[in-house]
Amino acid sequence: MSAMDIETPDLCVVGTLAFDDIETPSGVREGILGGSATYFSVAASHFAKVGVVGVVGEDFPAEFRRVLEGHDVGLAGLEVDPKGKTFHWKGKYEGDMDQAQTLATDLNVLETFAPKLPEAYQASPYVFLANTDPAIQMSVLDQLSDPRLVVMDTMNLWIDIARDNLLKVLKRVDGLMINDAEAKALSGEDNLIAAGRALVDFGPRFVVVKKGEHGSFLFSDSRLFALPSYPLDTVVDPTGAGDSFAGGVMGYLAGSNAQRVNDVCRSMLYGTVVASFTVSDFSLDCLSTLERAQVDERADEMRGFIRV
Amino acid sequence: MSAMDIETPDLCVVGTLAFDDIETPSGVREGILGGSATYFSVAASHFAKVGVVGVVGEDFPAEFRRVLEGHDVGLAGLEVDPKGKTFHWKGKYEGDMDQAQTLATDLNVLETFAPKLPEAYQASPYVFLANTDPAIQMSVLDQLSDPRLVVMDTMNLWIDIARDNLLKVLKRVDGLMINDAEAKALSGEDNLIAAGRALVDFGPRFVVVKKGEHGSFLFSDSRLFALPSYPLDTVVDPTGAGDSFAGGVMGYLAGSNAQRVNDVCRSMLYGTVVASFTVSDFSLDCLSTLERAQVDERADEMRGFIRV
Repeated sequence: MSAMDIETPDLCVVGTLAFDDIETPSGVREGILGGSATYFSVAASHFAKVGVVGVVGEDFPAEFRRVLEGHDVGLAGLEVDPKGKTFHWKGKYEGDMDQAQTLATDLNVLETFAPKLPEAYQASPYVFLANTDPAIQMSVLDQLSDPRLVVMDTMNLWIDIARDNLLKVLKRVDGLMINDAEAKALSGEDNLIAAGRALVDFGPRFVVVKKGEHGSFLFSDSRLFALPSYPLDTVVDPTGAGDSFAGGVMGYLAGSNAQRVNDVCRSMLYGTVVASFTVSDFSLDCLSTLERAQVDERADEMRGFIRV
Repeated sequence: MSAMDIETPDLCVVGTLAFDDIETPSGVREGILGGSATYFSVAASHFAKVGVVGVVGEDFPAEFRRVLEGHDVGLAGLEVDPKGKTFHWKGKYEGDMDQAQTLATDLNVLETFAPKLPEAYQASPYVFLANTDPAIQMSVLDQLSDPRLVVMDTMNLWIDIARDNLLKVLKRVDGLMINDAEAKALSGEDNLIAAGRALVDFGPRFVVVKKGEHGSFLFSDSRLFALPSYPLDTVVDPTGAGDSFAGGVMGYLAGSNAQRVNDVCRSMLYGTVVASFTVSDFSLDCLSTLERAQVDERADEMRGFIRV
């Protein structure tokens, strides 16, 4: 394929593709498909045309690539590093599975990865910067021509060791997605409402706080919004829930060319729904077989679930 | 006052009146007014005519009695035990204050208390059985003539030491209000959705699970419902939040003569709102100065908070 043939996606995600080893009360899986960009892009593919920017090693199998291609996810921005191995994460969940224990992280090809967006991707109107070093997130921002909506994720590691860079990136994005513990750590506030409000003061127009089984909050100057998670009586594997949620949110916004705060609130309904499918099985086993009609059905259920 | 003069309340609560010693990150208070029936009745008084059944010692001061009387709470069912001291609880909250550490519990007059409803109270259409020994809750049920809606609370102690009696009471009430940890303990389920569903199978028509800062769930055969808590960036003292929530719920239902599951969902909005005032100060300092207009204003805010 020549550079000329590469289409600009509605939504570009810069993130990881991974081999995961996972243990949950439901079982053990080794070498399964994982990574933020993987969950995000397949979740978002139900709503919009998505392009991935990331890196894998030569060991990344064709069948994993086909999971993404089967959802029409653009892989023009997927680098294959012939000298390295794919990023590997090993984690374990116990009890109510509200927190992963990380047992191993092998960065492998990620150690030297400097994302380079294909020219067509630089014009992507919607962009998601999945969790990575803020310096890398900044380098992606510098490659974008005129994005309509950029949202970022982060994690405790960067809050601890790269706070200054993180705050600089925060000033250049429209939205931040972050989990509750990270929101408290980044803001220095014990109370989550105070934390969310403080994060909006750091620069982004809106902050979405992911609370796992307790749902999500949106904070902005114009409104606060709360949404419960979809009521599941069985969770098989929580891995990828946050990235699937982000994929549903950004996919819905990109697919409907929307960006107002009220649109973001509505998009959280779809993020919640796709995440509920993700956690119903290991890896992308449930998410990747999902039909749009199932998403819409659960979105309607969600509306009934919160109707007062 | 002769027995003839006692009016039947819309809503009767059987619970405790207490002296509390409380420590939170906001400060320390000793000998302040507390107890489940206290918080419940003042919260409910904004919506309906409430009567309290409980016991205090001779040491219970006139000024505490006046807090209740000032809200038109009926005290015909309040026994004064001349030989005993009022129930006393000492507790401490740290960090995000999601759980109280109990430092002391002196049952005092509660040790021998056997609630006896005034004849007029036996005809109360709405009844709340606050947390106490299930055998006592059963004795109250036996005194009721034909209640329209009976809801009960409980706690881990009774789940551990009086489970059989608790299950018998559960078969005779319309609703159960319980916190998330207790819901899991009573049902034996790790997952809260599975726990709530299992509790409905124990007998009550609906189960309301209180999750503190994470809001509340309603479970029933006909619908599930989720509501976030009111977004507060400062919590001074969480004591009484659950009982105030229950008071708002039952007060709203009694005041509007409602009992369908959808009515209970709507009532949770009011329970959430009154609880948000309770935790904004120690004891009933905020709750007892509340005006109905403030309640309605926050209820409208809540509707906007959850609108998708």
